Amino acid sequence: MTQQQANDAQAIAEACAEVLWRNDPASKKLGMAIEKIAPGYAELSMTIADDMVNGHGICHGGFMFTLADSTFAFACNTYDQNCVAQHCTISYLAPAFTDDKLYATGREVSKHGRNGIYDITIVNQKDDKIVEFRGFSRTIAGTLISKDNNT
Amino acid sequence: MTQQQANDAQAIAEACAEVLWRNDPASKKLGMAIEKIAPGYAELSMTIADDMVNGHGICHGGFMFTLADSTFAFACNTYDQNCVAQHCTISYLAPAFTDDKLYATGREVSKHGRNGIYDITIVNQKDDKIVEFRGFSRTIAGTLISKDNNT
Amino acid sequence: MTQQQANDAQAIAEACAEVLWRNDPASKKLGMAIEKIAPGYAELSMTIADDMVNGHGICHGGFMFTLADSTFAFACNTYDQNCVAQHCTISYLAPAFTDDKLYATGREVSKHGRNGIYDITIVNQKDDKIVEFRGFSRTIAGTLISKDNNT
Amino acid sequence: MTQQQANDAQAIAEACAEVLWRNDPASKKLGMAIEKIAPGYAELSMTIADDMVNGHGICHGGFMFTLADSTFAFACNTYDQNCVAQHCTISYLAPAFTDDKLYATGREVSKHGRNGIYDITIVNQKDDKIVEFRGFSRTIAGTLISKDNNT
Repeated sequence: MTQQQANDAQAIAEACAEVLWRNDPASKKLGMAIEKIAPGYAELSMTIADDMVNGHGICHGGFMFTLADSTFAFACNTYDQNCVAQHCTISYLAPAFTDDKLYATGREVSKHGRNGIYDITIVNQKDDKIVEFRGFSRTIAGTLISKDNNT
Repeated sequence: MTQQQANDAQAIAEACAEVLWRNDPASKKLGMAIEKIAPGYAELSMTIADDMVNGHGICHGGFMFTLADSTFAFACNTYDQNCVAQHCTISYLAPAFTDDKLYATGREVSKHGRNGIYDITIVNQKDDKIVEFRGFSRTIAGTLISKDNNT
Repeated sequence: MTQQQANDAQAIAEACAEVLWRNDPASKKLGMAIEKIAPGYAELSMTIADDMVNGHGICHGGFMFTLADSTFAFACNTYDQNCVAQHCTISYLAPAFTDDKLYATGREVSKHGRNGIYDITIVNQKDDKIVEFRGFSRTIAGTLISKDNNT
Repeated sequence: MTQQQANDAQAIAEACAEVLWRNDPASKKLGMAIEKIAPGYAELSMTIADDMVNGHGICHGGFMFTLADSTFAFACNTYDQNCVAQHCTISYLAPAFTDDKLYATGREVSKHGRNGIYDITIVNQKDDKIVEFRGFSRTIAGTLISKDNNT
């Protein structure tokens, strides 16, 4: 992919997601899939596997967090500027169980200088809200697409 | 283990951890180990595997969260009363890399009625602080040890 | 005001706000005004007075928090069921100065059982975002309108 | 106060607090008093006045937040480097009432580069925990003592 092809915001967002995804074995390992990417926006899905449930028989909060956190990463890294998580809050609204399919949507709430705020909502296959997550990002040095060209 | 053996707080805490651990394939899958348990307190460790790193070449925040979240669960479930996470905040202080060994210590900050607050700190093998996590728990119906006896 | 008049959600929301406002000298003292009330929704405004600025010459975070917190209280107390704040997070996006007029809008993000999540955004007179606030509420015993009738 | 007098960390911390206090009409207006200052540490007190109670007959969360926030500001501004709040979380553990005397203690949890984390606990005159607050600070350009000398 060249800079010419990435000539509008949507193309840049998709190119960033492609680079990020290629270098993200963790999200792949958990079976995540990218559903949609747009500038400041991302949708990911994940099905809860047998080994993701905890001692209370429900999905371990860590895996729901990881889905939200990946969605956050894809949403804030859509401008070809490296962006990392600084601080996140997660609230568990309802439990999720084995074989549930979770859909996480992440949208930009604010972007001021190098600081961004993103809200991620996770629902299950019945559209029940499972998780509300708020992530605080910080832009750091470096780009995604250009870096990819150099390697 | 009988109720008689679990006649003091430390014994109850350890018995709870044993039950919780037996039913927690998620924490085992990620290679976590329990280092210490006491009433309102837990220490867990985890070594960062190759497939836990993200697109920026550093450990995916989700796995550090999962270590903190498990430590939180072990710390708040030491009174033989089922306790679940309601809300958590995590702050990333420094990155962690492949093969780093992470140590998470969780301590009780407050416990009022059914609400508890627990602070979890993660350091690496060089004792550098990696993560500060604050978890908000809520006691729900049911016990751990008795439930275990019934099964 | 009778129960008959409060026969739809909007009327109940407004009646609750009226009761809440009558018993809220703190918000009045700071010069707040209610701009709009609807079920799960509230808008309040406040002008920054001389004595609200801090040592850095900008509005003390506490007063911006108080505006957000009051907006949160008005938004979650619109169902004639007493609701209190359990936990709040606030992020400062830009400073506010003496004589700035702040507008806070609060909307319901989720409501599950006795737990609610509300997002409050504060902007200034130039529509610059100043604060993002997320409040976690819990329904407690008691009502607002009925209680008012009894006194 | 000269730089010579401020030749150790404690002296610098106290000098910073003095400058901060002189420029903080908001904290004074609410009747706060500084009880103790040390590097990365502050203790403040405040008595709840009649006009600080809210519609539920208990102290408005905003005033407890403001006490915690001021304590946070005094604790993080003890190194003669300007430091501002970026993000804060507050949890209400128990209500406070008119004439209660609140004591807030703030301590440094971590300090990495320009980012700091401070935990503030508020207790009442009976040593009941009322609030747990966690503040995230960021160092910005400028100093406190030198600035004071220049004016």
